[in-house]
Amino acid sequence: MKRVVQKFGGTSVGNLERIQATADIVERSVQQGIETAVVVSAMSGETNRLIGLANALCPDADVREMDQLVSTGEQVSAALLAIELQKRGVMAHSYTGVQAGFRTDSSYSRARILSVECERMLHRIERGEVPILTGFQGVNEHGDVTTLGRGGSDTSAVALAIALNADMCDIFTDVDGVYTTDPRIVPQAAKIERISYEEMLELASQGAKVLQNRSVELAMRYQMPIHLRSSFVDVPGTMVMKEDEVMERAAITGVAYNRDEAKITIKGIPDHPGIASALFGPIAEAGLNVDVIVQNVSEDGTTDITFTVPRGDFRKAMKIVQGVSKDMQARDVKGDDHVAKVSIIGVGMRSHSGVARKMFETLAEKAINIQMITTSEIKITVVIEEQHVDAAVKSLHTAFGLDAEGAAA
Amino acid sequence: MKRVVQKFGGTSVGNLERIQATADIVERSVQQGIETAVVVSAMSGETNRLIGLANALCPDADVREMDQLVSTGEQVSAALLAIELQKRGVMAHSYTGVQAGFRTDSSYSRARILSVECERMLHRIERGEVPILTGFQGVNEHGDVTTLGRGGSDTSAVALAIALNADMCDIFTDVDGVYTTDPRIVPQAAKIERISYEEMLELASQGAKVLQNRSVELAMRYQMPIHLRSSFVDVPGTMVMKEDEVMERAAITGVAYNRDEAKITIKGIPDHPGIASALFGPIAEAGLNVDVIVQNVSEDGTTDITFTVPRGDFRKAMKIVQGVSKDMQARDVKGDDHVAKVSIIGVGMRSHSGVARKMFETLAEKAINIQMITTSEIKITVVIEEQHVDAAVKSLHTAFGLDAEGAAA
Repeated sequence: MKRVVQKFGGTSVGNLERIQATADIVERSVQQGIETAVVVSAMSGETNRLIGLANALCPDADVREMDQLVSTGEQVSAALLAIELQKRGVMAHSYTGVQAGFRTDSSYSRARILSVECERMLHRIERGEVPILTGFQGVNEHGDVTTLGRGGSDTSAVALAIALNADMCDIFTDVDGVYTTDPRIVPQAAKIERISYEEMLELASQGAKVLQNRSVELAMRYQMPIHLRSSFVDVPGTMVMKEDEVMERAAITGVAYNRDEAKITIKGIPDHPGIASALFGPIAEAGLNVDVIVQNVSEDGTTDITFTVPRGDFRKAMKIVQGVSKDMQARDVKGDDHVAKVSIIGVGMRSHSGVARKMFETLAEKAINIQMITTSEIKITVVIEEQHVDAAVKSLHTAFGLDAEGAAA
Repeated sequence: MKRVVQKFGGTSVGNLERIQATADIVERSVQQGIETAVVVSAMSGETNRLIGLANALCPDADVREMDQLVSTGEQVSAALLAIELQKRGVMAHSYTGVQAGFRTDSSYSRARILSVECERMLHRIERGEVPILTGFQGVNEHGDVTTLGRGGSDTSAVALAIALNADMCDIFTDVDGVYTTDPRIVPQAAKIERISYEEMLELASQGAKVLQNRSVELAMRYQMPIHLRSSFVDVPGTMVMKEDEVMERAAITGVAYNRDEAKITIKGIPDHPGIASALFGPIAEAGLNVDVIVQNVSEDGTTDITFTVPRGDFRKAMKIVQGVSKDMQARDVKGDDHVAKVSIIGVGMRSHSGVARKMFETLAEKAINIQMITTSEIKITVVIEEQHVDAAVKSLHTAFGLDAEGAAA
């Protein structure tokens, strides 16, 4: 017998009509004889409403209390879905993180799952019941509620699928799959039928936030297939799975971009060992995430370092760097918060040669200046001026043959 | 060191301003060196909002799921109050029913507390922390959330006060105490300073729903004093306590009424043993609560039985009685859903004679016809036409000397 975990995000349970539509999907699965377990997020807007209440009282409220507070959102949507399913004669019950045995560490608001003691849910499934788990939350050793961070319900769903030894984890959302690029920029963007975990991780880190990264990492470790699909239209979505099960390898699977970038350059640093750690130590201590880093050695015995940070951290990072660069006797610090990243991603580039060259040529033809380059085994990223993002994405999408057939060019 | 449990109802945590005002009260208590534990209800309207969502999906939703659903209301208000108190430097944490060790039976939506395993909260109090308990809820042996029924937070508070061996249970609400009668009918109604548990129970059963009856019963059993007071104005409220601590005994403590009554009379029942059980058995099986019962024996060997039910159950009860009376070969069934109950209540009537006579005379002077009479040791109740309620309550309040001094007559 087939067993699946179905996860429904906030828009899929956003109001009573959507809860009924979600019940349709679950009911259909049960009628097909599939053992089905469900994970739900809070009704869309509810988590923000609760956070808003707390912030109005205190902007930096205690994380334990915040978790006690926001975890109620999923409890509401899970109970409502159970009520709707029961009305239809489907045996269903809702379970909170503690009831479902989701043990986590005590890092409130960003807890990690330690184990899923799912005997109770397993028992219920085997009796033909549909357990409905509140996503996004668990319980620590003290019996206190913890939450897994934004988008944590995806991770809940994958963890449950692994614990229940399910055949697949269906993640229902408001998009019908992963696209070769953002259809708002390239109307010819095509839905990707199958994508490897690695590619999905690279895509997500580029701002294509369809799945929480942790959920993909977890699925990859246990090789749990994820079917990312729409709860609004019943069409196949995108399968996220092991690379060797992903057929039809093109060189490139997708083109991603992220506008939310800023760049800081420190020029003329006297070049000696330890400058990188002297620079990035204080930035890490301030909790800032550095992304792309490029270092060039000049001929005069000094070196230039350029790196990017999320645009929201730009001012804070500039302040730190200006202090540090003085200590390092660097010549100059320059910042630019109007840059963006564009990446091409694909496991196929490992076996196709000339991918990098083709990317650079394509951008050159459009007279787009490349400010930084960084590469991984399955990704090439360039940093360019933000104003060129659309042109870069469009031209790369066409150049690598990703434009959907039949779509107007 | 003094130890109190403070309970705040829905209006006392109804919005962020009210939560701040409630935090003022808790903070003041802590500053006075009082060991303070808190019990909160859901923000006013929240429980109804959640029930409304469920009912829109299914009018008779599963009680387990309803409890999972509505119990979130208190979790939200408890966390918000904890956040507000922490902001002020008061050590405070919120605890759900399961976290606070409120073990109940499995009667979802009307569970009874079996035990309060409050070691954790006791430990926290002794460390100077203010534990904030979600009222109205507990956990059964399966780890499932249960709720105690409407107004159950009062019972939670009294149970916690008993478990923590507190000196008193302060119940903060939107009224400033118990009055000798409804001030909307009698402007001269006076606040009762002290009232016995027994009188409070009789008052509550007459529709003066200031405290959940179960909470008073529980307090009576363990002799836990309750201070019923306002969270809006800082004045002494009403102490509910042991009778022998209630001083200044007048004959009557208060006048209560309930308009929500209907009356059913079965006439000419052939009088033989078993008719009462034949009549009231089916009514009880239908889950209807019969209140006042009066039986008269006629001279022709038949008997008449009259009883009252809540007005909302009138049609259902009539239907049952009409069936049963046919089987019993009774002569006639009559119903009236425009009656009301008026009661005078007071432990003092045990030692004052002539209380009943004075009541009947007072009503006769106002030409109010008494349809039924029933008495207990500390209460006399009459059933009258609903239109006479105001006049009856006013005249009894004056006749028994309850009008506040100095108030306009």
